[in-house]
Amino acid sequence: MTSEHIGHEMQRLIAELYPICRSITGNGFRETLKILRRHVPLEMHEVPSGTQVFDWTVPKEWNIRDAYVKNSKGERVIDFQKSSLHVLNYSIPVKAKMSLSELKTHLFSLPEHPDWVPYRTSYYAERWGFCVSHNQLLSLSDGEYEVCIDSTLQDGHLTYGELYLPGQSRDEILFSCHTCHPSLANDNLSGVALATFLAKHLSGVTRRFSCRFLFIPGTIGSITWLSRNESKVVNIKHGLVITCVGDAGPSTYKKSRRGNAEIDRAVAHVLKHSGQPFEILDFSPYGYDERQYCSPGFDLPVGCFMRTPNGCYLEYHSSADNLEFVKPASLADSFAKCVAVHDLLERNKTYTSVNPKCEPQLGRRGLYQTIGGQRDVRQFELAMLWVLNLSDGSRSLLDIAERAGLAFGLINQAADALLTHGLLKEAA
Amino acid sequence: MTSEHIGHEMQRLIAELYPICRSITGNGFRETLKILRRHVPLEMHEVPSGTQVFDWTVPKEWNIRDAYVKNSKGERVIDFQKSSLHVLNYSIPVKAKMSLSELKTHLFSLPEHPDWVPYRTSYYAERWGFCVSHNQLLSLSDGEYEVCIDSTLQDGHLTYGELYLPGQSRDEILFSCHTCHPSLANDNLSGVALATFLAKHLSGVTRRFSCRFLFIPGTIGSITWLSRNESKVVNIKHGLVITCVGDAGPSTYKKSRRGNAEIDRAVAHVLKHSGQPFEILDFSPYGYDERQYCSPGFDLPVGCFMRTPNGCYLEYHSSADNLEFVKPASLADSFAKCVAVHDLLERNKTYTSVNPKCEPQLGRRGLYQTIGGQRDVRQFELAMLWVLNLSDGSRSLLDIAERAGLAFGLINQAADALLTHGLLKEAA
Amino acid sequence: MTSEHIGHEMQRLIAELYPICRSITGNGFRETLKILRRHVPLEMHEVPSGTQVFDWTVPKEWNIRDAYVKNSKGERVIDFQKSSLHVLNYSIPVKAKMSLSELKTHLFSLPEHPDWVPYRTSYYAERWGFCVSHNQLLSLSDGEYEVCIDSTLQDGHLTYGELYLPGQSRDEILFSCHTCHPSLANDNLSGVALATFLAKHLSGVTRRFSCRFLFIPGTIGSITWLSRNESKVVNIKHGLVITCVGDAGPSTYKKSRRGNAEIDRAVAHVLKHSGQPFEILDFSPYGYDERQYCSPGFDLPVGCFMRTPNGCYLEYHSSADNLEFVKPASLADSFAKCVAVHDLLERNKTYTSVNPKCEPQLGRRGLYQTIGGQRDVRQFELAMLWVLNLSDGSRSLLDIAERAGLAFGLINQAADALLTHGLLKEAA
Repeated sequence: MTSEHIGHEMQRLIAELYPICRSITGNGFRETLKILRRHVPLEMHEVPSGTQVFDWTVPKEWNIRDAYVKNSKGERVIDFQKSSLHVLNYSIPVKAKMSLSELKTHLFSLPEHPDWVPYRTSYYAERWGFCVSHNQLLSLSDGEYEVCIDSTLQDGHLTYGELYLPGQSRDEILFSCHTCHPSLANDNLSGVALATFLAKHLSGVTRRFSCRFLFIPGTIGSITWLSRNESKVVNIKHGLVITCVGDAGPSTYKKSRRGNAEIDRAVAHVLKHSGQPFEILDFSPYGYDERQYCSPGFDLPVGCFMRTPNGCYLEYHSSADNLEFVKPASLADSFAKCVAVHDLLERNKTYTSVNPKCEPQLGRRGLYQTIGGQRDVRQFELAMLWVLNLSDGSRSLLDIAERAGLAFGLINQAADALLTHGLLKEAA
Repeated sequence: MTSEHIGHEMQRLIAELYPICRSITGNGFRETLKILRRHVPLEMHEVPSGTQVFDWTVPKEWNIRDAYVKNSKGERVIDFQKSSLHVLNYSIPVKAKMSLSELKTHLFSLPEHPDWVPYRTSYYAERWGFCVSHNQLLSLSDGEYEVCIDSTLQDGHLTYGELYLPGQSRDEILFSCHTCHPSLANDNLSGVALATFLAKHLSGVTRRFSCRFLFIPGTIGSITWLSRNESKVVNIKHGLVITCVGDAGPSTYKKSRRGNAEIDRAVAHVLKHSGQPFEILDFSPYGYDERQYCSPGFDLPVGCFMRTPNGCYLEYHSSADNLEFVKPASLADSFAKCVAVHDLLERNKTYTSVNPKCEPQLGRRGLYQTIGGQRDVRQFELAMLWVLNLSDGSRSLLDIAERAGLAFGLINQAADALLTHGLLKEAA
Repeated sequence: MTSEHIGHEMQRLIAELYPICRSITGNGFRETLKILRRHVPLEMHEVPSGTQVFDWTVPKEWNIRDAYVKNSKGERVIDFQKSSLHVLNYSIPVKAKMSLSELKTHLFSLPEHPDWVPYRTSYYAERWGFCVSHNQLLSLSDGEYEVCIDSTLQDGHLTYGELYLPGQSRDEILFSCHTCHPSLANDNLSGVALATFLAKHLSGVTRRFSCRFLFIPGTIGSITWLSRNESKVVNIKHGLVITCVGDAGPSTYKKSRRGNAEIDRAVAHVLKHSGQPFEILDFSPYGYDERQYCSPGFDLPVGCFMRTPNGCYLEYHSSADNLEFVKPASLADSFAKCVAVHDLLERNKTYTSVNPKCEPQLGRRGLYQTIGGQRDVRQFELAMLWVLNLSDGSRSLLDIAERAGLAFGLINQAADALLTHGLLKEAA
């Protein structure tokens, strides 16, 4: 699949998922996973409301059929059917008549962006409300309004999707994306689409590492998964939370709590050698599900792969994070970088030189130019010299690439050539 | 006491002490301590001349009643009664007549500042001399002069003052200031005044750490104290030499020999978050009594808290380091920073999160906003997340504040809130 | 010998060696060593062709008497007698007639520097060829040419020179220079001359460390020496490869693979305190014989001392690297810096203060000014204070000089004064 093609495929999936009213539980989440299962064979898990997961409790399941505010003429002046953002996510049911002033205590808007509808939630405190554009809010005239939220909040389940691709080793790479946002394209349908296409791609390649993909509700989902899978956590050697990967900004990587884990160095290497602008951020305990994976009791090597981070673009958590905000080229580029990171992790082995005392004679093996005295060494020869010089059983190819200042791919090619000629062996 | 008020109180104490002719021994030192005892209950210690203190010997005690140079008309052209600086500190007695040229071999002046009288000493080589302004020196005409220094240098005692404020722990914080300079206001009456008011302030607060205040003669005083108190040295966990804290320059901290001791990081943190210019200097073995506290056999975590360092202001060790040179606002600011450093040390504990696996649910405890989706996290919430994420029993609150880039006070407040809700416990 | 004088002496030796056609084996190498033996009593070693040295085999010995290309008029249009560079080094014998187009497949030139003759070799693949200026190449007209290379490539020996100067300790400093280049002045006759005069100089001084000088063919020479002397390698505590030390560029030091070995810090210190521009490069596994000394099975603390590095000056490996390209002043300066590095290594001892608790009283020993209160401490006094403060048995004088930011020479003088007064003792 060409890079251009995959960007458009991801965009198409995002467009299909966009109208669904997702939340941290409920049928919108299930419907989303069913669409993803057309691409990859996700397992769907259902965890009952009331289940204790560490310090948290799986909440009641929320579902919604309709919601509106009607004016005295019976016109829907706020209408959930037009956008899933219009209802405060997790609103309890309400059916009432009230004055404008009372209604206003339940309305959320963004005065600084008067045309945009904000995205707001109230998962853990029972409330109802509507989100509207500020212009819409200002246009409401005095009078009586009929308010209806036809939702249910009842014992049910928390749903999440999981795909495990076994590799040669039980050691695994975790890819996690929150899948609980309603009609928001970059945060986080872009991450959902990338994870889906990455899973599809990795299904078809030989894998040293096993790979695990999680499609979960934010916060409560990762807490639930960690709580139910504590024994598997030890296998997670590398991990990425994938989110906000479709906007036009440069790639951004937020490091794991450890700060110098192999995943941190692998992503940094790929970004540095991409020839494109990028940013590396230190870990902080605010953001996405890396907060849970990097809590002190787990401290997993899981970073967060993004383009523009949460809260750093104006359109964040509003109706302006829409289908036009995500770009096929950005999606494709984010996808390619994730593939490159996976590829680097797969190939990042540690070798020992078979001839540690002095260089082996590369020339007689056809690995080195036989005319001496020329001004410059060839990059490939230099890469071989670096691999031979540093392969003492304690340094991985990524260590060598970093020290040499050369791209991992070139170092890896050099190591392959040396392996072919019996000059390296894998370190014990 | 308001900040403005305390600056003026310190200034008043400095003015009271200024005229006294102090030296490393003698009645000037005793008189100074007696004045300080009106503020804080200092113990006065007397160590006999001839006592061996490590490689040094406590010197003979020096006292002076009068000193002058009279011209042939009997006029006092140099007069100790006008300034204690006029006599070379520790001058042996002399009573003689001599020509101008002979007299000049005993005169010290500052040609580059012709109106200022220098401060010079000769503690360990027996000499006599006078310090004069260069203009004064130039105005002396040929003729015979009568020279009189009515001093004594005899077996006696070295005196120092000490105040020990017991805390909950035997671990202690040392505050040390040299108290041996005669009429010099910034170096070091400013330090004497700050230490006095800090001792007074700390007497009235609950203390985890014990506090020890030393008012000692420079060099020989700290050597004497260390020699007589070797068994107590192990209790000193943090320490500051306090000097030159009244001039208009920015706060300066010279780190301990260790360079990354908790006191070094505490002072640096307070200065960085003060919103004012400051300077941090690496340790060097020249300066004040930190030279002795940081000698390799002790290597105590003792830094030096100053404004403009010794030798870095023109007025240093001259009559221009006078009462106008020290500013109440600077004194008050230096005082406030020392209080903040003490406070930080007191509160800098290490905790363990009670819920290390995933975040605890702050929302249901009223510690987190219940409306989700908003653009920015609140600083206080972020501080709580940092404390929870890093409190794994190995990091102090200062470690956390440094890594989070947040002020210690905010981190400490967050920890207090988490403690109140049973989410943290003190690390063993 | 004055600095100016030694530069001219080195230049004279280079001029004497310049015309000889050296290679990695053969009589040119032997003739070169014989000339060096007029200065220092080198041992000459002969290693038979076919000897296995790690992954390599000592090659056949190459010798050459004459080589030329004659045009149809019988004129020598390319003539080895004019420059040893004209023949591809290690060319097999040839005697043939051929067309210009066939001849051209054996010619090497530098189109970007049309007046310069390149230096090219083919040690490990049997070939013949000529090196010519590009203008010379272009001036050849069609017609038949007579080609003659009167060389031999037969079983014989690899020759190298070695000088061992025993010191008080078996620990040794290695100085190595490749001696295999024909008529090239900077690379590496400058290194050969510097090593020769350094050996002569060090023969006449008291030595703590033993010194070993190697005059070897590049690559195969260091591999051969290491292979035959594995048991001695453990004694090598410091080492320098010396090359390209005569051009007008600034001094450059390429660090050993370890990067922070004492030799790396010693050279960096000398260069920083030289008052001249310089450059420090990280290790890379391309360059000179440090490639072998720093191979992972040896990892010796051997760096490379140069002026402009290999490949970084236009004249590199061409006839323009001639006698005018090396400057007596540069040679003398490089020599002086090597002497200073050796001197630093010799004096870089570790001491323990006899009075670790507080400063010893320097004044009564005449080591400190007795008039106190002056603005500035003297540099020598400050150096003594640094040595006393940091001499706790774990820090060498170089460690102290680096931390103090003072020149090693001053720190060393201070240590000597303290030793004389019994205030330091050598650390166990």
